[in-house]
This record gives sequence, C-alpha cells and structure tokens, in this order.
Amino acid sequence: MTEPVSDFYSIIPAGGIGSRLWPLSRADAPKFLHDLTGSGQTLLRDTWDRLAPLSGPDRIAVVTGRAHRAAVEKELPGIADANVFLESEPRESTAAIGLAAAILSRREPDVIVGSFPADQVIRVPHLFEWAVQQAIAVAREGYICTIGIPPTEPSIGFGYIKKAGELIVDGAPEAAMVERFVEKPNLATAKEYFADRSYLWNAGMFIARADVLLGEIAESRPQLYAGLMDLAEAWDDHAARGPVVDRVWPTLEKIAIDYTVAEPAAERGRLAVIPGHFDWDDVGDFASLAKLNSHGRKNDLAILGSNARVLADSASGIVVSQTKRVISLIGVKDIVVVDTPDALLVTTSENAQRVKGVVDALKLTGRDVL
Amino acid sequence: MTEPVSDFYSIIPAGGIGSRLWPLSRADAPKFLHDLTGSGQTLLRDTWDRLAPLSGPDRIAVVTGRAHRAAVEKELPGIADANVFLESEPRESTAAIGLAAAILSRREPDVIVGSFPADQVIRVPHLFEWAVQQAIAVAREGYICTIGIPPTEPSIGFGYIKKAGELIVDGAPEAAMVERFVEKPNLATAKEYFADRSYLWNAGMFIARADVLLGEIAESRPQLYAGLMDLAEAWDDHAARGPVVDRVWPTLEKIAIDYTVAEPAAERGRLAVIPGHFDWDDVGDFASLAKLNSHGRKNDLAILGSNARVLADSASGIVVSQTKRVISLIGVKDIVVVDTPDALLVTTSENAQRVKGVVDALKLTGRDVL
Repeated sequence: MTEPVSDFYSIIPAGGIGSRLWPLSRADAPKFLHDLTGSGQTLLRDTWDRLAPLSGPDRIAVVTGRAHRAAVEKELPGIADANVFLESEPRESTAAIGLAAAILSRREPDVIVGSFPADQVIRVPHLFEWAVQQAIAVAREGYICTIGIPPTEPSIGFGYIKKAGELIVDGAPEAAMVERFVEKPNLATAKEYFADRSYLWNAGMFIARADVLLGEIAESRPQLYAGLMDLAEAWDDHAARGPVVDRVWPTLEKIAIDYTVAEPAAERGRLAVIPGHFDWDDVGDFASLAKLNSHGRKNDLAILGSNARVLADSASGIVVSQTKRVISLIGVKDIVVVDTPDALLVTTSENAQRVKGVVDALKLTGRDVL
Repeated sequence: MTEPVSDFYSIIPAGGIGSRLWPLSRADAPKFLHDLTGSGQTLLRDTWDRLAPLSGPDRIAVVTGRAHRAAVEKELPGIADANVFLESEPRESTAAIGLAAAILSRREPDVIVGSFPADQVIRVPHLFEWAVQQAIAVAREGYICTIGIPPTEPSIGFGYIKKAGELIVDGAPEAAMVERFVEKPNLATAKEYFADRSYLWNAGMFIARADVLLGEIAESRPQLYAGLMDLAEAWDDHAARGPVVDRVWPTLEKIAIDYTVAEPAAERGRLAVIPGHFDWDDVGDFASLAKLNSHGRKNDLAILGSNARVLADSASGIVVSQTKRVISLIGVKDIVVVDTPDALLVTTSENAQRVKGVVDALKLTGRDVL
C-alpha cells in the first residue's frame, strides 16, 4: 500500500450533468452518479477510491450542487461534513476548484491540492498513483502541474497539451514543461498532433500548492479571486457562511479553469505536465461509452443495465437499459439505444455528439425529462 | 347510398395476431384491434364499416378467438350474438371461413358469402363496393370469385393470382377467369409478374355461394368438411353446441383456404377474379406500416400514437409510441422504433420481415411480452 502524502488534499469537482449522455445522465442523476463500466459502483465512488490512497480518505473534498448533497453522501459514506463544499448554483470550474483551494488553504496554508474530475473512467490505479505522486513533487516546487494522457488515436473529442522541454524535479522523472493548451482540434489537426508525439490529451487534472493556484486566479481574474477570498474567510464560521454565499457566489464569473489558470501559467512558464500511462476515458458521449463497454462482447453489442432483457439479431453498438422492458434489436449497426422510464434515445455512434442538441431542444419543450 | 344486396352475407375472419408487427401487435391486442392509419378507429371497425353498405350491418359475421370476444363486441357494438362465431383455438382459415359458411348456409341455404380479412387497409370505399358487387354477380353464377389487386410494384410480400380469359357475367364487366394462384415469389419472378400485367395480388378475399364454397372443401378435404357440417348442425342449438365444439373443433385440419378452395377451384376452371382498383395494403410488416403512414410527413418520419412525444433530428422511418415517454431519434435512417410499456423494438425497414424471428425466439424466453 502507498502511504498517503501528508500535505496533499484531493478535490473532486462533481458538477457537470454530462448532457451528451442524456437520457442516462440527468439533472437529478448526473454522469458522476452512474456506473458506466458495469463495475457495480458510481464514477464518483471510483474517483474517491482512486484518491484515498494518495491523500487519505479524510482529505478528499467534494464540490457539488446542493441538489446532489444527499446522493454524494450516500455514495461516500465516509465523507466528513467539512469536506462537502456545496454550490448554491453551478458557476463553472474556476469558482468550484477555486473555492475548495481557498477554503483548504485557509485551513492549512502550505497544502498541496489536486483537482480530479468526478466522472472519468481510469484503469490501472497504480499508474494513476505514480503520475499523481510525480505531479505532487512538481507542485511542491511551486509549479502548477497537470496530467496529460498520451493519445491512442487522433481524437477530436479532447483538448490537447503541447509539451515543451523536460523539467528536472526530484521524484518526478517524467516531468516536462507545457508550451500551451489547445482546444479540441479538427480531424486534420488531431492527426498532426497524434503523429507529433509531443501532444497529450488534457484530462482536466490540476495539482498545485493551493496558494500558487489562487495566485494565478488573482493575477488573471482579480474580482473572482476577491470573491473566493470572501467566501473562504466566512466558510468555516457557521453563522457567517450563509449570508456571504448568498451575496458573493451568484456574482462569480463563470469561466473554466483552463482560461484562468492553465493557459496563463503555461504562457509564463509555470505549468508542468506528467504523462499518465493509465487507461483513461472521460466517456464524453455514447460512442465512447459503447467503445468502453464492448470489449469482448459477442457481436460487439454492449449492454449496460443490471436488469437488461435484450434480444439482438445482427446488432452492434450499445444498449443502456434502465427499465425491465424487453428490448429487441434487429439488423441495426453501431446503434445507441438508451431506455429509461420516461425517455428513450435512439441514435448511432456517429451521431453521438449531437445528443447535446436534443438536450438544448428539450429545454424548450421537455424540461420534465432533463 | 348503395342498397345492401339481399342474399349476401359478410364474413370477417379476425384471427391472426400479426407477428411481424410485434410488439405493437400481441396475442391480447392483435393487429385487427389497432388503428394503423391514424384514422381513429381499429382495422376491424374499418372492415365492418366497409362491408355494412354491401350486406347491411345485421348481416356481418365475425369469426374470432374466445379471448377476443369482448374486444370485438366493444369495437362492433351493433353486432348480434348470432353473428359472433367463436373459435376455441385457432385452426387456420379453412376452418374459420368454412365454419361461418356452414352455419350461414344452414340458416339460409342460398346465401352468398364474402370473406374479408379483418386487418387490411383499404381506401376509396366506392371502388371496393364496386368490386364486391361484381364479385357477387359472378358468385351468383356458381363461381368462386376472388378480388385481385393490380400490383403497383414488384412486391415479394404478397401471393399472386394469374388471370386467364375474360368471363362474361351480367353486372361484372371486369370479371376474368383465374389460371392459377402463386405463392410469394422471389424478386426476379415478382419483376416478371409486375411487367406481365396478367398477375394480380392475392388480397385473401373470397366471394361465393356458401354451398359452392363448402362443396370445394368437401371435394378437397372430406373429413374437414364433415367436421364443419357437424359443427353447423349443432351451432344454433344452445344445448348441443358446446359438446360438439369441444369434440370436433380441435380435430379440424389446420390449412389455409388457398389450398382447400382457391387452388383446386382454379384448376377446375371454377375460380374467377375481379380486379380491385381501390388503394389496398395488408400492412404485413413495419416497412409497409412506415410507407403507409409517411405520406407528406416532414423528413419522412411517420409517427403513430396519439400521445407521441417525438424529437427527431435527421431521422426517417416510423415511430410507434404507446407510452408517454419522450422519444428522441438522431441521425437514424429508415428506422423502425416501436415503444410499448413492456417491450421495445428497434430495427430498420429493410429488416422488418425478420421481426417474426424475434417473436419465435420470445416463445422460448419471453412469453410474457408476446
């Protein structure tokens, strides 16, 4: 067993709904509360289990919406009240991660924090631990460190991190500097990146001293930083917290941490990266869910759902069954069928990214099934 | 308004389940009890409404299973008890139509009967009436008369009727003799038939004097005929019927009327045909259901179901909605989605004929949803 790193604290932002996985993923049952691998437990719990050996289970904070508090506490029965940071409304990742960093930094000024999305699938835990341990070593030197995934295909579904020269840090033999962050590319560009080998997938993980992370926010977004400081100051004072949250939280700028921390830090040569050699997938849509679950299944039809009754004849793709209905598929290839009590989706792997458009349309006509 | 023909009696065999329309069509909700056209009423009721002007509503008999008695009487509130002929178990069309002919012939020796499937879609009623009126005129001359549909495409889903020379009968200017009946052909043969013009689709309608029809059965299947006679003799005797039905019905040979009446009569030059110029479809599978319902709908996606909530993006084919669920279709072409409370079917028009195979498989593992 790995010994936990004593000055390290894990942060799990559990916020996004995962619109591209509708109708499996919902406002009241977001992606991180699902078992997407047939492992028998939710992605959130998987994330917790991965982090417990690194920071110790008492040093894992979850930032989530008020509506998900009960579900989160049910999934993580060991979590202390003081480690649940509730958002009164979603305000994007700078606010979520910044709030956690600000509170933890106040409690423990030299703390190193690591932020890890709640809804990814990661296999081979010891390789994950090894990457995070290296990232902590780099963070201790004052860098902001991210973990990048060596691409296994020219994906257009992920952002990329361009590595620069190597960074010499004790305990982090694979560390490198980051030249820049790039958004999801088109296919031609993705192919260049894939051939280039100096590009890694951005897995949305950040490890840094809390004060260094907050320093980047202070630099790039002084107002947002000031708001986070106000919140952190009041947070552990039971009487003060409520009014400050009500006043400050709704005013915080909604912006991803990539823009407020990662990109500016990369520009100023303060961003490092460790390659993660573990199996990784952010399961962004049903095409990747199908791929993730079809290994070795007959006819390549993946079936998700413990009570599934599926009768397939020349069918491939994925079926997600959340009802007890018999589902019969005949002659449909690369199909995606998601069967829930109040909504049914039928599409193909090729069209999986378009699911978000349906969710947008439902905001007008079908809020009851969002 | 047409005057009913005084010596004519309509028979509606309402027996088949329509396996290729599973899970819409079920043992307890067979095809003839569905509205497949969005007309607002069932196919059985449509059939009744088409026949009422020809025989009068008091002279329409329905042959159906005991399990469907209540549903049939609900659909046809005007039907007299004496016009409902219940089968204790299905024994194919010779037994069903033969039973009705035998009972009616006993009640009214010179009666002309016409048998019309309960589950077809027919448009332009006055053309249907005109065809049946001609067929009645031919039947009165001692022929067995069928109605054949001039093909609109080289279908492999129907049997064909090969016309021979014309038949001179007063009141039936379009009458012709039938050379032979042919089973569903392969595509090459269907193309020949379509080009030939002397082939018509077999719509499964037979019009004849009841005694002539029964004479054909007596000739081809003497035992079956004897059973029908025993049943007819006891039928209208309340005390006698039950025991005779229990004894005789289960012993009747299961055989289609095509083999016992139509083919032998054609061979002996006793089968005539009238072309039916009305729109006709037997809606044998979901491909034809899609075609039937997609006229003029945007993107060619047909939607069947009064409470349907369908959100489609680049989808074509057909959705049958029997639940209140939101159904979202993205980028699926020629798709068939049938959404019922306990079973879901997803296939394509091209695979529509394979639905029967699923039903066969369910006989082993899923009788609860048949």
